[in-house]
Amino acid sequence: MFFSFDLQTQNQTALIDITHLAVKAVQQAGIKDGLCLVYIPHTTAGVTINENADPDVVTDILAALDKIVPAGGYRHREGNSPAHIKASLMGSSQTVIVRKGNLVLGTWQGIYFCEFDGPRRRKIHIKVWQTGA
Amino acid sequence: MFFSFDLQTQNQTALIDITHLAVKAVQQAGIKDGLCLVYIPHTTAGVTINENADPDVVTDILAALDKIVPAGGYRHREGNSPAHIKASLMGSSQTVIVRKGNLVLGTWQGIYFCEFDGPRRRKIHIKVWQTGA
Amino acid sequence: MFFSFDLQTQNQTALIDITHLAVKAVQQAGIKDGLCLVYIPHTTAGVTINENADPDVVTDILAALDKIVPAGGYRHREGNSPAHIKASLMGSSQTVIVRKGNLVLGTWQGIYFCEFDGPRRRKIHIKVWQTGA
Repeated sequence: MFFSFDLQTQNQTALIDITHLAVKAVQQAGIKDGLCLVYIPHTTAGVTINENADPDVVTDILAALDKIVPAGGYRHREGNSPAHIKASLMGSSQTVIVRKGNLVLGTWQGIYFCEFDGPRRRKIHIKVWQTGA
Repeated sequence: MFFSFDLQTQNQTALIDITHLAVKAVQQAGIKDGLCLVYIPHTTAGVTINENADPDVVTDILAALDKIVPAGGYRHREGNSPAHIKASLMGSSQTVIVRKGNLVLGTWQGIYFCEFDGPRRRKIHIKVWQTGA
Repeated sequence: MFFSFDLQTQNQTALIDITHLAVKAVQQAGIKDGLCLVYIPHTTAGVTINENADPDVVTDILAALDKIVPAGGYRHREGNSPAHIKASLMGSSQTVIVRKGNLVLGTWQGIYFCEFDGPRRRKIHIKVWQTGA
């Protein structure tokens, strides 16, 4: 099954926990065993899986990406080249296993929408499909 | 269905739009709903999804990767360690949803083969498979 | 089919070849055509596909990641923020095509567990599923 969710981001850069959207998609799909793909149809945003406990981790990831891809010195006139590069570093999709009706995430794992050129209205596509157990 | 395409790259580093190969694979597979995996069977090349409009974005991504992974100071004697590292940063595969017979890409998204150690003759594997709608 | 393997890492950072685990999973699943997802349920470890021939490549990747994400200057009090960031740069999963009962890896490709905050006891989840040929 295919799902598409809207997300209004509030800041220029942010990591936003969207695990609940994947959980909702798996529940609505009603499958027991299969997979769940979270796909971001944007080029200045991405998706990553990382710690859901201490919010400082998310802050540190964003600050590190700012150092890895500093502002300034790019050709693209829109001025958001760092956002494009960060999106490719994090990736456009994440795939999670579904087992016994649940997402198989590690204890500390959450799925994060990565906004790198906000605030914007964004879309999150989620595909859930059944496989053998 | 499984497809394999050949690609002769022309430069040492390049991002080459291969979206049309994925479109062709989905059409030839003739599926309505499913997924499309683009897989690169090389260790000094990768694949990413990014902007297909302004070619400066691709130029900026390549230049940024050169700064993130500078030349020199590596142990691997072939001298192409930066290419290996960039390949891991971009990734070996990208997965795109197929819906109603079409790839579900965002408006500005293209699929890019990432050459980091060319020019070379490369292979691109594409797997398309059907799922429930 | 779903498989879960344990891995005891020995060092703080390491890239450990786990290709044989994916091969074993595909064999035990007994499928001919399909896909194999290697998923890491941790937030300070990841998985990447890179060269399996010269071990210097792995050493160079780890050293490059140490430069890209230097130690120090983070808010997360556990002190392992670089490990979290490296995990997101490499990714939580890798997908490989299965064809005629075999993983379709390139000649020089191996699947590597990326330990960034060891030594620890880790889990590796592998999902193998059948598709049309």
